[in-house]
Amino acid sequence: MAVRKRDPEKTRTHLLQVGFQEIYQNGFQGVSVDQIVGKSSVTKGAFFHYFPTKSDLGYAIVDEFLREMILERWIRPLAAYPNPVQGILNRFKKNIVAWPEENLIRGCPLNNLSQEMSAVDPVFREKLQVVMNLWIDETEKYLKKAKTDGYLKKTVQTKQLAQFIVTLQEGTYAMAKTLGDRKVFDSLYGSLRAHLEILSSSPTRDDVRE
Amino acid sequence: MAVRKRDPEKTRTHLLQVGFQEIYQNGFQGVSVDQIVGKSSVTKGAFFHYFPTKSDLGYAIVDEFLREMILERWIRPLAAYPNPVQGILNRFKKNIVAWPEENLIRGCPLNNLSQEMSAVDPVFREKLQVVMNLWIDETEKYLKKAKTDGYLKKTVQTKQLAQFIVTLQEGTYAMAKTLGDRKVFDSLYGSLRAHLEILSSSPTRDDVRE
Repeated sequence: MAVRKRDPEKTRTHLLQVGFQEIYQNGFQGVSVDQIVGKSSVTKGAFFHYFPTKSDLGYAIVDEFLREMILERWIRPLAAYPNPVQGILNRFKKNIVAWPEENLIRGCPLNNLSQEMSAVDPVFREKLQVVMNLWIDETEKYLKKAKTDGYLKKTVQTKQLAQFIVTLQEGTYAMAKTLGDRKVFDSLYGSLRAHLEILSSSPTRDDVRE
Repeated sequence: MAVRKRDPEKTRTHLLQVGFQEIYQNGFQGVSVDQIVGKSSVTKGAFFHYFPTKSDLGYAIVDEFLREMILERWIRPLAAYPNPVQGILNRFKKNIVAWPEENLIRGCPLNNLSQEMSAVDPVFREKLQVVMNLWIDETEKYLKKAKTDGYLKKTVQTKQLAQFIVTLQEGTYAMAKTLGDRKVFDSLYGSLRAHLEILSSSPTRDDVRE
């Protein structure tokens, strides 16, 4: 059965998905609207109907895709853990174990876009800051909860620890990308675990069961 | 007095310097040979005499500039410290205090190039890996010395710790770039210091005197 009616929302999402993949593989500045249109099922005219410029597509990817990706991958799963510190460690381990081999040298899409575009385009910078601050702030909420519930020592500065955790999470993907070697994942997980263990009031477990 | 003789080595270095600055400001894919030539004092013909392609210029920047920058900024100064752990902390603090405001949103040139180009170009990837591994290996040499000389606990795994330190150093510049906020420097320095303090056999000082 042929699709009779156009579905603008679906077309827009399709372009975001294709754009995300092309940018992830080639960098934002390394990809053209023609390339994205070529990989999509829409015309160039349709592209420009939804996104007046390539930058507008890029901004929407940050606002919608990357924001959602961070929440889904790093934040929402923490709600299932009585001890959020255990949750942070388990999610980190799960995410590095599940990270596809072909993405190893591609790294984290948020970090890529930030390192490539923050200095070049102030609108990108502002939008990427919103997502990064959201990641840090949401992590801190769980650290505060851990402190209140007696899992973290009372002396822990939750803002500082949240910045440290997110920096190490991002740094881990950046390092694995640069070295092209996933062995560094385990090494950095070990360091994060040792760091959090020192700040914890109760011991954490080294497993990925939930 | 006019320069009568061409100095090939000087011209090549001049092109490397201009290329480095242009790439640092615009990204590798965001800059053209015409732009680099336009900012330089040489002709396009001369450029192609030294570097057959823009990529050849980029590769030389990694092999020569970035390698030298890492050694000069992070490794060679450590020789002056009896306790290398103290040296690593002091250099980190010195480097973040001295980091120019205009470079804040530009981040680390090595990290930028790696995040932008490692997935796109295997020659870049290989060359960037050489520099990153050099940074980690040289850091580990000093950690081994610290362990031998009794500054680090005997249980410390120096390879793992070297990877952690370099990942956090790189991650710190990446995070300050994304957030556009140098306050995160002090926060992450504090976390690194706490981490190293735990692994040390003797206390470290929080100052930047040498």
